[in-house]
This record gives sequence, C-alpha cells and structure tokens, in this order.
Amino acid sequence: MTTDTRDFATWMGEVQARMEAALARLLPPAGAAPARLHQAMRYAVLEGGKRVRPLLAFAAGEVTGAAPERLEVAAAAVELIHAYSLVHDDMPCMDDDVLRRGKPTVHVEYDQATALLVGDALQSLAFFLLCEKPLADSPAAQIEMVRTLALATGSRGMAGGQAIDLESTGKPLELPELEFMHIHKTGALIRAAAVLGARCGSPLGAREAENLDRYAKCVGLAFQVVDDVLDCEASTATLGKTAGKDAIQGKATYVSAMGLARARELAEDLRRQAHTAIEPFGGRAARLAQLADFIVLRKF
Amino acid sequence: MTTDTRDFATWMGEVQARMEAALARLLPPAGAAPARLHQAMRYAVLEGGKRVRPLLAFAAGEVTGAAPERLEVAAAAVELIHAYSLVHDDMPCMDDDVLRRGKPTVHVEYDQATALLVGDALQSLAFFLLCEKPLADSPAAQIEMVRTLALATGSRGMAGGQAIDLESTGKPLELPELEFMHIHKTGALIRAAAVLGARCGSPLGAREAENLDRYAKCVGLAFQVVDDVLDCEASTATLGKTAGKDAIQGKATYVSAMGLARARELAEDLRRQAHTAIEPFGGRAARLAQLADFIVLRKF
Repeated sequence: MTTDTRDFATWMGEVQARMEAALARLLPPAGAAPARLHQAMRYAVLEGGKRVRPLLAFAAGEVTGAAPERLEVAAAAVELIHAYSLVHDDMPCMDDDVLRRGKPTVHVEYDQATALLVGDALQSLAFFLLCEKPLADSPAAQIEMVRTLALATGSRGMAGGQAIDLESTGKPLELPELEFMHIHKTGALIRAAAVLGARCGSPLGAREAENLDRYAKCVGLAFQVVDDVLDCEASTATLGKTAGKDAIQGKATYVSAMGLARARELAEDLRRQAHTAIEPFGGRAARLAQLADFIVLRKF
Repeated sequence: MTTDTRDFATWMGEVQARMEAALARLLPPAGAAPARLHQAMRYAVLEGGKRVRPLLAFAAGEVTGAAPERLEVAAAAVELIHAYSLVHDDMPCMDDDVLRRGKPTVHVEYDQATALLVGDALQSLAFFLLCEKPLADSPAAQIEMVRTLALATGSRGMAGGQAIDLESTGKPLELPELEFMHIHKTGALIRAAAVLGARCGSPLGAREAENLDRYAKCVGLAFQVVDDVLDCEASTATLGKTAGKDAIQGKATYVSAMGLARARELAEDLRRQAHTAIEPFGGRAARLAQLADFIVLRKF
C-alpha cells in the first residue's frame, strides 16, 4: 500500500470533484428524450451537497484497496438514492420545502408530477448502475451489493424511517423512538454506503465487516445528531435550506429530546466510538477516521 | 417435457392464485414496523388486477423450463414495479384518480405522503426480491435480470413513458409519438416480464431471445390498444375505474388517433404478429400464444 499523503481537505475535494464528473456522466444526457425529465433529474443531483455518502464509500474503499473506477459507480448509486429521497421529501405532501442546497426544490423549479417521476427514475437508475459493469469480487458479491442497497432504501430502511417520521410529527418522541427512526431514515443508507464501498475491493472477513458496520452506524447517527444541532443553531443563509424548520413543524430532534448540550456530547461520544471500531484496520482506516471527525466537527 | 393439458382459464387461475400467495408472503407483514406503511403496501398490491405481467413471466418460463419457485419471485418483482407505478400515477399531482380496481386509491384510503412512500418502497422491494435467492442460471445472469428490470422501470422505460404522457396531455398526438410513449410507459415493463420469466430457466439463444422480445413487444402494444378501446367502450361499473377518463382529460389514445374500428384492427394485427414471432418455439410457446389471445380478446 502506498501512503496517501494528501491532507483530508484535498482528498475530500478530489473525491467530490470525481463524483461530480461521474454523476454528470452516469445520469442520462439532458438532451435525450424525455428531455424535461432528464433535465430535472440532473438538476436534482448535480452541483449539490457535501456528498457525504460517496465520501464514506471512498473512505471504506481505502480499507479494501478498491479501484476508484468501481467506487465512483457504487457511490453514485448510493448518492442517487439519497437525491431521490430529498426530491420526494421536499414535495408538498411531505415536508413542503421550497429550498434545497440554496436552489428551488425540484417541484418548485419544475412541477410536482415531474418531481415525483424524477425521484422514481433516480431510484431505478441507482439499481441499474449497480448492474451495468463488474463492481465486486464476483457476480455473487455484486448481487449482495444490490441487495444491501435495496434493503437500505425500502420500507425496512430509509422509506420506513420516513414513514416513522411522518407518523411521529407533532408528537414528543422518547429518545429510543427517535433513534429507531434515524437508524432507518438516514442511518441505513449511510451504512450501505460504507458496505458498498468496501465491497468494491477485496472481501472483508466477518469480524472486519462488523467493525466497519459499527463505525458506519455511529457515524450515521452522529451525522443526524449534528444535523439537529446545526438546524437549531444555524440561520437560513448558512445552511441553504429553511432553518429551524424542525422546531416550527414540531418534529422531534435530538435537541428537543435531550437539549443542545447533551446532543453535542452525544455526537462527540459517537465520534469516539467510530474511531474505536476501526482501530483494527490501522492505517487503512485513516480516511474513515478523518471523515468521522469531519462529520461531527463540521459547522454547516 | 410433460404436456400440460390444463385449459387456459385453469392455468391462468392457478398462476393468479399462486401469485397472490407469493405476493402476500413476499410483502412485509402488516404488523411489522412501520405498520401503517406496510399495511398500505399490502393494500396497494394484494387482491387486485389481472396479473398480466406475472402471467407473461410464467408463460415465458414455460419456454425455458423455469421452476415455478423462481418464476413467482421474478414475477412478483415485476408486479411490484407495476403496482408502485399505479400508486404514484393515481396521485393528485398525476392522474388524480380516486378509484383503482374498484377500491379507493392509496392516497384516498391512506394519505398522499403514505402513497408516495408506498410507491417508493415497492420499487425498492422489487429489486430486493431479485437479489434474495438464486433465480437464474448463474449470478451473472441474475445481475442481468436486475439490470433489465431497472432499465425497464426508469427514465428510459416506464417512468420516461409517464413523463412523455404528462408532456403530451391535451395535445393531439400523431400515431408514431403515441406508439413511442406506450413502448415506454407500458411496453417496457411487459417486455421485462417476459425476459425475466425466461431467464428463470435454461438460457435462450440470441435468436430465440429476439423472437420472445418481438412477441412481448407486440403483446405490450396490443395490451395498450385494447385498453384504449375498452376505455372508450366500457362503463365505470365494468372496469372498476373511472371510464372514458382519457377522453375527458384530452389524452391521446389509439382510438382518438386512428378511430375505434382501425384500433380494433391494429390489436388483431399485433396478435397475429405475436403468434408468428413465437412459432419457432413450437409447443413450448402454447401458453404465450393463449395469453396473446386473452390479452387482445378480453372484454374487461
């Protein structure tokens, strides 16, 4: 293994740039029929977001020596699922958001019917990409990747978490219920990002896979806790989305459930647990360690 | 090969009953959390429809000697995609339908947010099912099945067809445009049903696969032509959905584009072409032949 001496910010910038190019290439061209749908799909995905899930896939891929050409496809699939969920989440019948990443949401820029189809088609595209080229050690391992992503996306994963979120809006959730929701709503896909990234390289042993999953679980929860903390603190201008909205909508958050100070402590605790989980990987987990720090210590 | 002496109606009834049981088993239990979402998913899928796509998968499976245990999973995946598309299609921002198969549509029986998540989660479940157990000759062939379904479902398939449909509502479409729309909107998934069913058995040669695809293309178009004819003729009571709605919404149909008599002739012509395409399969294609007749000659 050659030592990667790039600092974290440089590495992150390079992965983000690579992902932007990969997504632009893997999405249908804006001119291909049906053009309006394809333009809206590109609008929903490109030039946006921190690409946390792709960063996690790439960092996990460092552990298994995965080729970037494979990682970018697996990471794109996960990011398309994330993007679809945002498009549907923003629709009037869900969170009714008009701004996302500082731009009008898809149903505002286009229309609701198009937003519905954009989300649907992004989900299909994610699964298509996972089947187009060899990505894993074997075809059987690649099927396992599709299975992992499908499980993380559906009613026992992300979509299920959104359903729990819907049911609980306006109710004061206890901490275990809140955690149950987030483990599904955001945690499942973040864990899938790590699993899929690792699968692009040499197979992990059962114990190693468990360690990676424990790391991803901690980072996934920490990500949400920090999101809640930032939502409480930040102004609309900084976040590029309507801030403090959780509180206005009466949504349970880690801040509402445990207070700001304890929520910050929880995030820090999860960060430490994430570091502990990947200790056995040694230097191969350097990016994973840095990413955990970035996710918890970020200010935006 | 043992000769299957059951008449078509008996065979169809048995496949439909098998599919109902398979779908009931493969959908998440109604009691599993999130219960409301899972109940709505079951509501959207069970006790409904003619199961045309599963019938097609089973009939194609007869050509390749596929095991019913595999066929029912592949057929369920296709049917879940179809069911998801109906749930989203019925939503107020799309066709705004309140009745489907004689029952209130999902967003009426539950709510719009739940309908959105039901469609999303049914799509994920379809891809999950294709990866859970061995279904094809090899893992590589199984990945090809997932790829086929994803392509047929997304922006270059069904979702793309819906986008074209949206764009064209209120415009008098020429016949080639109308055909282009239906090849995507309903044709892609019907063709995928035949391909996936055949893949559950022995591999087809390239020429055979082409013949099967030509058959499925004809049957898919015929299905839509007959739908348009029936929509024009039928009353709400018989169809279990709001009839004549296409005309009211100003949607282009085969009837509006070419008149009722010529639309009927086209359906009959497609039925004959479908029969010709599968002639090389001989007796193995008996169910495919009967199914083409059923689809074109049905009165509901």
